[in-house]
Amino acid sequence: MQLPFMTWAESEAQIRKDPLVIVPIGSTEQHGPNGLIGTDALNAEAVAIAVGKATEAMVGPVVAIGMAQHHLAFSGSITLRPSTMIAFISDYVFSLARHGVRKFFFINGHGGNIAPLSAAFSEIYATASLDPSGQVPRVRCVQHNWYDQKSVRAYAAQAFGDRDGSHATAAEVSLTQHLFPDSIRRVNMPPVAKAHRRFTDAIDLRSLHPDGRIGSEPSLATPAHGKALFEAALADLSPALRAFRDEP
Amino acid sequence: MQLPFMTWAESEAQIRKDPLVIVPIGSTEQHGPNGLIGTDALNAEAVAIAVGKATEAMVGPVVAIGMAQHHLAFSGSITLRPSTMIAFISDYVFSLARHGVRKFFFINGHGGNIAPLSAAFSEIYATASLDPSGQVPRVRCVQHNWYDQKSVRAYAAQAFGDRDGSHATAAEVSLTQHLFPDSIRRVNMPPVAKAHRRFTDAIDLRSLHPDGRIGSEPSLATPAHGKALFEAALADLSPALRAFRDEP
Amino acid sequence: MQLPFMTWAESEAQIRKDPLVIVPIGSTEQHGPNGLIGTDALNAEAVAIAVGKATEAMVGPVVAIGMAQHHLAFSGSITLRPSTMIAFISDYVFSLARHGVRKFFFINGHGGNIAPLSAAFSEIYATASLDPSGQVPRVRCVQHNWYDQKSVRAYAAQAFGDRDGSHATAAEVSLTQHLFPDSIRRVNMPPVAKAHRRFTDAIDLRSLHPDGRIGSEPSLATPAHGKALFEAALADLSPALRAFRDEP
Amino acid sequence: MQLPFMTWAESEAQIRKDPLVIVPIGSTEQHGPNGLIGTDALNAEAVAIAVGKATEAMVGPVVAIGMAQHHLAFSGSITLRPSTMIAFISDYVFSLARHGVRKFFFINGHGGNIAPLSAAFSEIYATASLDPSGQVPRVRCVQHNWYDQKSVRAYAAQAFGDRDGSHATAAEVSLTQHLFPDSIRRVNMPPVAKAHRRFTDAIDLRSLHPDGRIGSEPSLATPAHGKALFEAALADLSPALRAFRDEP
Amino acid sequence: MQLPFMTWAESEAQIRKDPLVIVPIGSTEQHGPNGLIGTDALNAEAVAIAVGKATEAMVGPVVAIGMAQHHLAFSGSITLRPSTMIAFISDYVFSLARHGVRKFFFINGHGGNIAPLSAAFSEIYATASLDPSGQVPRVRCVQHNWYDQKSVRAYAAQAFGDRDGSHATAAEVSLTQHLFPDSIRRVNMPPVAKAHRRFTDAIDLRSLHPDGRIGSEPSLATPAHGKALFEAALADLSPALRAFRDEP
Amino acid sequence: MQLPFMTWAESEAQIRKDPLVIVPIGSTEQHGPNGLIGTDALNAEAVAIAVGKATEAMVGPVVAIGMAQHHLAFSGSITLRPSTMIAFISDYVFSLARHGVRKFFFINGHGGNIAPLSAAFSEIYATASLDPSGQVPRVRCVQHNWYDQKSVRAYAAQAFGDRDGSHATAAEVSLTQHLFPDSIRRVNMPPVAKAHRRFTDAIDLRSLHPDGRIGSEPSLATPAHGKALFEAALADLSPALRAFRDEP
Repeated sequence: MQLPFMTWAESEAQIRKDPLVIVPIGSTEQHGPNGLIGTDALNAEAVAIAVGKATEAMVGPVVAIGMAQHHLAFSGSITLRPSTMIAFISDYVFSLARHGVRKFFFINGHGGNIAPLSAAFSEIYATASLDPSGQVPRVRCVQHNWYDQKSVRAYAAQAFGDRDGSHATAAEVSLTQHLFPDSIRRVNMPPVAKAHRRFTDAIDLRSLHPDGRIGSEPSLATPAHGKALFEAALADLSPALRAFRDEP
Repeated sequence: MQLPFMTWAESEAQIRKDPLVIVPIGSTEQHGPNGLIGTDALNAEAVAIAVGKATEAMVGPVVAIGMAQHHLAFSGSITLRPSTMIAFISDYVFSLARHGVRKFFFINGHGGNIAPLSAAFSEIYATASLDPSGQVPRVRCVQHNWYDQKSVRAYAAQAFGDRDGSHATAAEVSLTQHLFPDSIRRVNMPPVAKAHRRFTDAIDLRSLHPDGRIGSEPSLATPAHGKALFEAALADLSPALRAFRDEP
Repeated sequence: MQLPFMTWAESEAQIRKDPLVIVPIGSTEQHGPNGLIGTDALNAEAVAIAVGKATEAMVGPVVAIGMAQHHLAFSGSITLRPSTMIAFISDYVFSLARHGVRKFFFINGHGGNIAPLSAAFSEIYATASLDPSGQVPRVRCVQHNWYDQKSVRAYAAQAFGDRDGSHATAAEVSLTQHLFPDSIRRVNMPPVAKAHRRFTDAIDLRSLHPDGRIGSEPSLATPAHGKALFEAALADLSPALRAFRDEP
Repeated sequence: MQLPFMTWAESEAQIRKDPLVIVPIGSTEQHGPNGLIGTDALNAEAVAIAVGKATEAMVGPVVAIGMAQHHLAFSGSITLRPSTMIAFISDYVFSLARHGVRKFFFINGHGGNIAPLSAAFSEIYATASLDPSGQVPRVRCVQHNWYDQKSVRAYAAQAFGDRDGSHATAAEVSLTQHLFPDSIRRVNMPPVAKAHRRFTDAIDLRSLHPDGRIGSEPSLATPAHGKALFEAALADLSPALRAFRDEP
Repeated sequence: MQLPFMTWAESEAQIRKDPLVIVPIGSTEQHGPNGLIGTDALNAEAVAIAVGKATEAMVGPVVAIGMAQHHLAFSGSITLRPSTMIAFISDYVFSLARHGVRKFFFINGHGGNIAPLSAAFSEIYATASLDPSGQVPRVRCVQHNWYDQKSVRAYAAQAFGDRDGSHATAAEVSLTQHLFPDSIRRVNMPPVAKAHRRFTDAIDLRSLHPDGRIGSEPSLATPAHGKALFEAALADLSPALRAFRDEP
Repeated sequence: MQLPFMTWAESEAQIRKDPLVIVPIGSTEQHGPNGLIGTDALNAEAVAIAVGKATEAMVGPVVAIGMAQHHLAFSGSITLRPSTMIAFISDYVFSLARHGVRKFFFINGHGGNIAPLSAAFSEIYATASLDPSGQVPRVRCVQHNWYDQKSVRAYAAQAFGDRDGSHATAAEVSLTQHLFPDSIRRVNMPPVAKAHRRFTDAIDLRSLHPDGRIGSEPSLATPAHGKALFEAALADLSPALRAFRDEP
């Protein structure tokens, strides 16, 4: 049940029944030598659609551009500044709140989004928190990173050990390969070097991680691993959504 | 050549060869009784991908949420406020300008985007126009509405006459039906009434156009018409892009 | 009935009788070799005052600085960034809405204002469109370009043919000459060259249009033409205002 | 030498000779029983033009809408929020700085503008103050209230004593009567009551000052007083401008 | 009664009894050869706490960073842009308004704050002034500069004559020496030179006032003077607060 | 070495030697029945000063107001909206960057700050990341929560077990009691109830946590525990700072 593929009358009926929406959010940024620039958005959207199907929940349009300032030294990366993301997510949420949606279940595919998305939630909540009249509609927002689900972590640990890494990971590249087998790239790459500290801005990240991998060996990625990871994510996120839906 | 399906190295090579990107931009909003909420984004993206293929141009991620405040009285509609769109488009454009892109060819699927997108271009240009040092990278942005192309207008006029309308048109619904035949809706609807004046805000629009159609008979839509319109759009936009690319 | 020349008690009585205001909006920007920098504001204001007189409508203070980033490579041009214009027009409109004005009839003298002004209207409407409580006062805004009125276009076509152009036009310079005969400039200028494409930022505009004319021959301007154009504008805009006033 | 009545070539020559501009700034707000809503803008503009003539300085377009939130409980008053004024003045100043203007001499007609205008200057200066590269063009801005000039204060004290007041003053109404003798209003009004404290927002101001006068007796105004005050303002401001121009 | 040292239950009881808060506001900026960078914040906070004690009023957390763009050419100075200060003060005030506070008594220690703080008040008031529904909670804000109190000015005039100056004054340095005797600096400095005009941005200020003093001789400062000035400030501000509290 | 207690010449010398600053950041918000509203700021500042002393690092003024929208249903709580915090932290950082500071070591005392502070860092970095000219000064920012340090967690676990909780914790109240023994409150409170889900806005938090404690038993707090926790924090943060300083 994807909102873009519904009519307004169907949306109205669905929200009346279940005032909840899943929002996939990813990023458009470099993913190392063999990862696709759209990895984070493609993965988040696919997982979200599957979770929506499994739980009969409505899925909103994917937020395909995230907070990726740190990847801007690599071609193709696009960022929203955090202040832009706050405005964007606020408009998204308040628009659907206008139609009666009260719960927003974000499925996130990109670590760089966690903080600004959380900041956006606080900016949204502050409207009600600062309002003494009690007239502002109140909403509830949560974010879940598909790659951080317990089952996903467990599978990745078993499959890749400490070579999964933290960006352009073997796990996320596997998932994209499973979803888009026609877009698999075969690229030779040397063993990744471990960085001794965390990056700051884009130039800094590239100087520490010259080919875009952060501690990862995405050459280990396979579509089969991707399929397993996809199912693991679905297995954890579906009950999480149902629990969120059932909250009073 | 869709940016989300490229690696950063491929993006780098492509931009060096052709510092131009196509940006599809649509909207997420009601489209009458049988039109999909995602119509404008789905159509713009599909046309953009086809134009990109025909012209070997890179296609950036779709801007799926546009300026749709006037549709907010119908469920499922999502809007960016114009000020948010200006910030969003600025971040999109300046991110890719960082990588060397100098020409942005927006393919638009939604009339409500025209003014705020044009305002965003002016905001972007103003950075260079106000700069006395000449250090700001200069870009060039154009927008083309796929539904406004001469061949598209001609076909729609012949196929639907004055029953094409100006929102939830027979033409745009046809194109979506062609692209997503599994999502075709059959809905009975009475002949549309003509409005005597232009709408302002969301409540006003709904009071003038109670089922979301604006002067249109989308019951005339067929996938075959959609296919013809798609080809018409492609036929006009591909040379337009080539002319833009060739500008000094 | 110009608001700046009224007392607050007169304003109160007038708005109670007719909750409508005319807002002249122009620009402060180069207008070629013999056009005045204030052309767009001076013309819009004069036309607005005449329309106000003819229709007994209140005229607000002129917005003399518009969106003119593209003219900044010529001395004396001043721009508002679109985001500033949105804030400015919002404050203007919400201030008068506070006093009961519900209809805003903008008379515009500058093409560069059309998009950002329309974006400002949407930003204003969005406040009501996003509001579920129905407590936000709702207003209606329209813009009419005086130079685009049917009678004006007809006269200009007959008087200047295709030498009217699109900036620093013979028509707008004529109107200023009619209004301010003491400020007429006699400047020799060569025939204007046609540009092969549309400009983007200020440097680009100047490189395409080195003396500031865009396809126009303002040497054809005369005060007599200006008088005729003024009357043509008045003839079309007065009934347009009355129709707007009569809308439910 | 008013910028709106110059061509761009004349502006260029003038700025090369004298990189200074006078900016008149007023307000559009209630001025008591017999004062005009445009008083502050009309007065500031007239004084600025006269100072410009006396000193051969260029005069920019008047800023007719100022910070007047406190007058919004009286019909016809329009305000810019301070944040909007900061953006507006920044755009005005940076636009002319682009053309080489380095000194801005604001002639102000409204007390409510003093703080936000000063804040705008600081926002503008901060761009250079925070910039380590030294590439930001540096400008100098001053504001002078015409009604605060020593000669003006002296004349008003002699003519009106303590009945001049602090808003809708006898002095400012006199000046408008001198400038616009056709717009003189004769209104009976009781002696004004002194308020015991300073107002805050609009509702508060109206509760303290029910007809809009703040400690003033504008019934004392005459065009002859206005003429004398005008000359007094001119006598003080012209040398002030010359001193500013001569600063290194 | 300092808010940071209270519990929420104590705050609730206090605000119910007295819906007023004292807000100390200062700056973090250079204060000449022997003045501390924290001078303005340290002084304002100490005075505010003493006034709070004397009047049994609640004292909020100090705003230690103010508007100091003009001092940025001296190491250690930190500024808020005026637009940031407006947002910051708005959040501070609206947060406490949520809890019932209706009167805000700012005790200011820095001249550069006066205008942007006043602008912030207007921005806050504008929310109510523009609101036709009467639902916005209305607050009242005043600012008092401790150094500008009549008794303080009198003492400083007697103690330092015209050598008190206008920045890094003998008076403010004395007060800090009284409050923090362990932080007294002994620095030789030549007699200060008088500047012939007012500074603008940071580079300009430093070129006019190379060691950071503006017309002052802070070598005259002593803790004993500081103690006397502290008592003078307290003597004037305590009745001012009581009068504000008693306003209807 | 606290910046507020230094002169500008001392700041200049220090930054030349060590271009690093410690920034304490806390919050002003309810801390349960016996915790002080200033807890988070008081603790962060004290720890920061101690770390500064131990490492000979400069300590900037405390950011005493943080992101606390979720506590606004309890009296005395003050929040910055995340967008305000981004502007505030940006001004703080860019001001000191102007003086040569390149490394910012934030010591944080409040969980609600983590996301918006991280968003602020990204907004700051984005200025450099989006800049193709390489002229923007590049800085490095890190945040460390004093309460999250390994030694702190170990001590709290041993002292309080799972009764430390996540807000108004026994640990943070202990630290404040150690620092401000005169402000210790004795309040009887029932055993805290565990909440079944995470709060969203302020009303929601209060409905789940009616006295402001979140899973904590701050009645267990003692000054002695506070002293031990303080030393634990110092023991971990000092080497962390030195490592950060030594990064290339």
